[in-house]
Amino acid sequence: MSEMETELEESDAGSVLNEKANPCGVLVRPRELRVMLRSVPAPAPGEVRLQMRCVGICGSDVHYWWHGSCGPFRLHDPMIIGHESAGVVEALGAGVTSLQVGDRVALEPGVPCLQCQRCREGRYNLCPNIKFFATPPVDGSLARYVCHPAAWCYRLPESVSLEEGAMCEPLSVAVHANRRAGTTIGSLVLVLGAGPIGLLNCMVAKAFGASIIVVTDIDDRRLAFAETHAGADAVINTRDLDEHDAALVVQQALDGAQADIALDCAGLESTMRLAMHVVRPGGRICLVGMGSSAMHVPLVDASSREIDIFGVFRYSNTYPTCIALLASGRVNVKPLITHRFMGLEESSLEAAFETARTAANGAVKVMLTIPE
Amino acid sequence: MSEMETELEESDAGSVLNEKANPCGVLVRPRELRVMLRSVPAPAPGEVRLQMRCVGICGSDVHYWWHGSCGPFRLHDPMIIGHESAGVVEALGAGVTSLQVGDRVALEPGVPCLQCQRCREGRYNLCPNIKFFATPPVDGSLARYVCHPAAWCYRLPESVSLEEGAMCEPLSVAVHANRRAGTTIGSLVLVLGAGPIGLLNCMVAKAFGASIIVVTDIDDRRLAFAETHAGADAVINTRDLDEHDAALVVQQALDGAQADIALDCAGLESTMRLAMHVVRPGGRICLVGMGSSAMHVPLVDASSREIDIFGVFRYSNTYPTCIALLASGRVNVKPLITHRFMGLEESSLEAAFETARTAANGAVKVMLTIPE
Amino acid sequence: MSEMETELEESDAGSVLNEKANPCGVLVRPRELRVMLRSVPAPAPGEVRLQMRCVGICGSDVHYWWHGSCGPFRLHDPMIIGHESAGVVEALGAGVTSLQVGDRVALEPGVPCLQCQRCREGRYNLCPNIKFFATPPVDGSLARYVCHPAAWCYRLPESVSLEEGAMCEPLSVAVHANRRAGTTIGSLVLVLGAGPIGLLNCMVAKAFGASIIVVTDIDDRRLAFAETHAGADAVINTRDLDEHDAALVVQQALDGAQADIALDCAGLESTMRLAMHVVRPGGRICLVGMGSSAMHVPLVDASSREIDIFGVFRYSNTYPTCIALLASGRVNVKPLITHRFMGLEESSLEAAFETARTAANGAVKVMLTIPE
Amino acid sequence: MSEMETELEESDAGSVLNEKANPCGVLVRPRELRVMLRSVPAPAPGEVRLQMRCVGICGSDVHYWWHGSCGPFRLHDPMIIGHESAGVVEALGAGVTSLQVGDRVALEPGVPCLQCQRCREGRYNLCPNIKFFATPPVDGSLARYVCHPAAWCYRLPESVSLEEGAMCEPLSVAVHANRRAGTTIGSLVLVLGAGPIGLLNCMVAKAFGASIIVVTDIDDRRLAFAETHAGADAVINTRDLDEHDAALVVQQALDGAQADIALDCAGLESTMRLAMHVVRPGGRICLVGMGSSAMHVPLVDASSREIDIFGVFRYSNTYPTCIALLASGRVNVKPLITHRFMGLEESSLEAAFETARTAANGAVKVMLTIPE
Repeated sequence: MSEMETELEESDAGSVLNEKANPCGVLVRPRELRVMLRSVPAPAPGEVRLQMRCVGICGSDVHYWWHGSCGPFRLHDPMIIGHESAGVVEALGAGVTSLQVGDRVALEPGVPCLQCQRCREGRYNLCPNIKFFATPPVDGSLARYVCHPAAWCYRLPESVSLEEGAMCEPLSVAVHANRRAGTTIGSLVLVLGAGPIGLLNCMVAKAFGASIIVVTDIDDRRLAFAETHAGADAVINTRDLDEHDAALVVQQALDGAQADIALDCAGLESTMRLAMHVVRPGGRICLVGMGSSAMHVPLVDASSREIDIFGVFRYSNTYPTCIALLASGRVNVKPLITHRFMGLEESSLEAAFETARTAANGAVKVMLTIPE
Repeated sequence: MSEMETELEESDAGSVLNEKANPCGVLVRPRELRVMLRSVPAPAPGEVRLQMRCVGICGSDVHYWWHGSCGPFRLHDPMIIGHESAGVVEALGAGVTSLQVGDRVALEPGVPCLQCQRCREGRYNLCPNIKFFATPPVDGSLARYVCHPAAWCYRLPESVSLEEGAMCEPLSVAVHANRRAGTTIGSLVLVLGAGPIGLLNCMVAKAFGASIIVVTDIDDRRLAFAETHAGADAVINTRDLDEHDAALVVQQALDGAQADIALDCAGLESTMRLAMHVVRPGGRICLVGMGSSAMHVPLVDASSREIDIFGVFRYSNTYPTCIALLASGRVNVKPLITHRFMGLEESSLEAAFETARTAANGAVKVMLTIPE
Repeated sequence: MSEMETELEESDAGSVLNEKANPCGVLVRPRELRVMLRSVPAPAPGEVRLQMRCVGICGSDVHYWWHGSCGPFRLHDPMIIGHESAGVVEALGAGVTSLQVGDRVALEPGVPCLQCQRCREGRYNLCPNIKFFATPPVDGSLARYVCHPAAWCYRLPESVSLEEGAMCEPLSVAVHANRRAGTTIGSLVLVLGAGPIGLLNCMVAKAFGASIIVVTDIDDRRLAFAETHAGADAVINTRDLDEHDAALVVQQALDGAQADIALDCAGLESTMRLAMHVVRPGGRICLVGMGSSAMHVPLVDASSREIDIFGVFRYSNTYPTCIALLASGRVNVKPLITHRFMGLEESSLEAAFETARTAANGAVKVMLTIPE
Repeated sequence: MSEMETELEESDAGSVLNEKANPCGVLVRPRELRVMLRSVPAPAPGEVRLQMRCVGICGSDVHYWWHGSCGPFRLHDPMIIGHESAGVVEALGAGVTSLQVGDRVALEPGVPCLQCQRCREGRYNLCPNIKFFATPPVDGSLARYVCHPAAWCYRLPESVSLEEGAMCEPLSVAVHANRRAGTTIGSLVLVLGAGPIGLLNCMVAKAFGASIIVVTDIDDRRLAFAETHAGADAVINTRDLDEHDAALVVQQALDGAQADIALDCAGLESTMRLAMHVVRPGGRICLVGMGSSAMHVPLVDASSREIDIFGVFRYSNTYPTCIALLASGRVNVKPLITHRFMGLEESSLEAAFETARTAANGAVKVMLTIPE
């Protein structure tokens, strides 16, 4: 949101736009989510105003809610939460021609500066100046009305629902991870961790052509879900296995071969160690999850077999790919959306976050919906 | 060396070839190097027989000598030592047309199977079937006569000496590391460790176009050498610095910027941690040295900035590049050869290894020479 | 086939192996195909002997048959024809452990030297020393018994038939083309030419994730086949269209967009010109077919939009990918095999080649089968 | 230049800024260059105003002057000419922190939208919305005062002169071409055409590590210049050679080898044909020059040896690399600047363009200088 827009918002709030209210889901302080009325923003040049419809709850949202921080970011002031979102275009800012009122769109939540070296190289996710929904102090998208640059709104084809549109955000992480990992036809893939991101990584690995995907976790219910809904060829509960035994079991599940690729969606010392044991010389380990900060790992051993280790930070250039995956049916995210709540009422907001936090009743992805 | 060749060697040793002796530098058991007479091998089809002239001593040679092992490899039986080598072609096996008697060549010490998946993809250094000089149980090249496939012998142009030819082996490690790191015009590079491999990495980084190269070590003499002979733009003794202070000093030396690339030629927990602090988002860390086996490192932190971490195992397709670097003067390895010993006499062999082991008298690279 | 094997063959033909006959399909001179008896070869070390079962007829086979040449290669002496083949392992040469008698395998027809620079880089298809089935003067695989290096025989899983195994050869061309083209999720692809190679390129583009594939040809029957069996999203008969009109129609079929990728499986001046008109800036044109030798094309115009133009020569590292594509059902080549003939009888051999040459009765791929 | 800036310029021209005049070199119509007074622009937010100091004359400038067009672009209205430029920062627009008044900078002449798909992928040179100096209808930089986004102005280190700064523009073309070609240590390179762009490509190929560079042209004087000042290892006048003879002579100059890379800086049918004859299988041809529009070439022959053919359109992410090349002395462009004229006087402007057009007196690069 540009400064100009903010000014307009202030000056116009009492007049032109006053007829509309803009309830927003605001994280006031840790464990205190409130629905507050804000003025309806006017789209700055290049922006569109959206009626938001679907906002998914991500692990980072829960973390901000419960702890007031996530990684290096810390909540200081009240902040609108939410960044996995889709809505309908309601108004066009000056100069917008790529979208029309009524278009259903997914919102890419990060708006990079596009001027720095990383942006110019095409790695805009690494832009130090990026403004990303619900990363303090930037407000998120859980509101009835949100303005966003048209260039970062992606029109959804008829066959893709708004809920699926909101899912483009976590799906993007999986696309970015699998791209960086080089998953391709015939790849043998190990996915560590069967939470929402692990499941999406499994689905995308399959869509990219993986031959065998083995998923590990310590929760049988999540593993069953991976097998039923995410295309896992084999699942392994590693709770009671030491890393050597786990490595053997994984290798059995890979028909005796080592993995080409490991996607560590847990990011724990134990999962990274398992990945390093199981991946073949010249293979790749992508660190997607962020479970442990520092960890004790056999890095020289892995790297002397030229196993590349690399992570992902968000994603770039993924939204068109996600929409193509959804529209073609190569990836089906619908089964992941296990729970739905009305997003702009305080009671349901609290319930939704609590469900997401505890994964109650087998919750995988909790979706907030906002009525028209 | 093929089995067929070995058979010929046995049967012919007493007749045709008996007139020549083949003294070899044999590591009989840890800390016991002996010069032993072996029969002169006859080149199998596709091989040439070489009069060896220069064999450098590598850290791994010293490690086998002192400890009887190196990484996962262990000395069980007496083994000819040496793998950084150059010589003169003396006899051609059947079918060899690429070389002529009298050619001066550098020997690439590893002969891969060229049939496995890694070989077919062009990553023959990862071949599980590779036979590599002086990696148990394969004999090395410290002998008067050695047979080697002609395809793995590289003719040296007149401007490149046999000593430089032997240096192609450690230089290959640096070429492979800088290739994998993507060092290019303008790169800001941190080299951790100023031993022979660190110095060569520094030189190659410069030849690949690095703008600023900072070298760290804990030994002032090595750092001075890096500055004088290897093109380091700045050197930093990190002995008394904690990792945060070291990171600050490195960044100052990089004109306030973060490094694009770190080449960790020490491979210690402390150097890797420093590398992770100093490299920019989207940068690369190449783990070249193998100082620590396991280590406690902030891997999630590094990977969530998309710092790629990867190692090198030997090298592939580097010898022509090394010869081009030497012939063009882009890299000058001569100053690194600080000490020379006669390689096929027991007393000097012992002295050479002891000099290499202790880096006595400022030894960087110790070269064994074999008289005609 | 090694020289040693040939010698054994000669000497042993009258004794050990005499009990078996080895009928072969020999191209004696242009338009003269004969079935001739040869001795049964003994596998050299590293080789296996195969009972051949399926040999597909390729355009190049037909070209040799009809014209006695193909591209730069010219038939001088009688040569066994055939290179798209699969069979069953019948005998193991010394040292073979990767296969067992009874294994069903696809044969990769080219055996590169694996010593030259291209081989070492992983581009063994460009090996100047490669020996490739049925490329003069190397014999092909249309014989009851053929010896081949075990390393170039790929075991077929149960779910992949021998006919499909033989199809791995032309499928490899399509995999190599799509890899080089960078086809991925969401790609907009134009395939020019709907012969067998065009159809396979269409199928592989779909398997690699292309969103829209448009196929052009001048034959409605072939186009119908592309739509029905190869996953084409749209087909266009360009017979009566000039290149500008054709470009417009293609763009319409791509929802108004330009193509990311063109796979020119005809290789004519007209198809290349169309490709250059239709591909977007920064896109890629892969020249797969070899219809015209020289051609008059707007190369500066295309290259000044950074449209990369590149061809394929056979393939490398494709067989495992092909088997993965077939085993997973991502590609279904069965409908392409429209005609079958008994491969080792002269009358049917002639009929098969004539059918392939004229595409009589809608022939797409003609398969020769060899009874046990 | 933003619209806002233009407005300010209009409204303020008579007041605040009136004290300064802004003489500009305007191409009124073909062959009519005039120096006209324009108002001094005020920098919009994010822009800086520069006192221009050096503007080189490029072939495209000459083409617009002489023909009123260049490639697909056509002059309709009077336009300020010039795009190879450097100057000194004189005023900062709102929000500019990366530069200070007095900074000496090179101006990257193209300002892309940074929103389109190509921009986001890091290929901003292919942006369909790019605004590029002196490409109709966008004004160029031959003026006393020019406003330009600070993000596209690159501070020059002390060791790099403003003239060298202006040379970053044509040097960028050579960097982009050599990057795309993959020139590296040991490359064997053929440069076709020894005009300014050919010479720069030769220099950059050397800086990137090429072992042997052969330059062809039909003008002995240019070839001598290539040998003396651009690092050509061999030069060949191809005027009287047919393509086969020329290919032989080139190969001799490459020590009997084929070229890894050809950089065609002429872009003629004859040069492309020669390139296709001389490049090795798997090599690369970069089409830099734009001499012929359409051409008759053996494209199937080249592509069936997997020779990749691709062009360059301007460049992206090259300016930091150019400055690193100049600052380090790896490339020395000074000898190329053979003629200098005072850029803001009509008589010298005409003389400068005529010198550039006719390459009179051995002119290579003609530089216009603008007094403080």
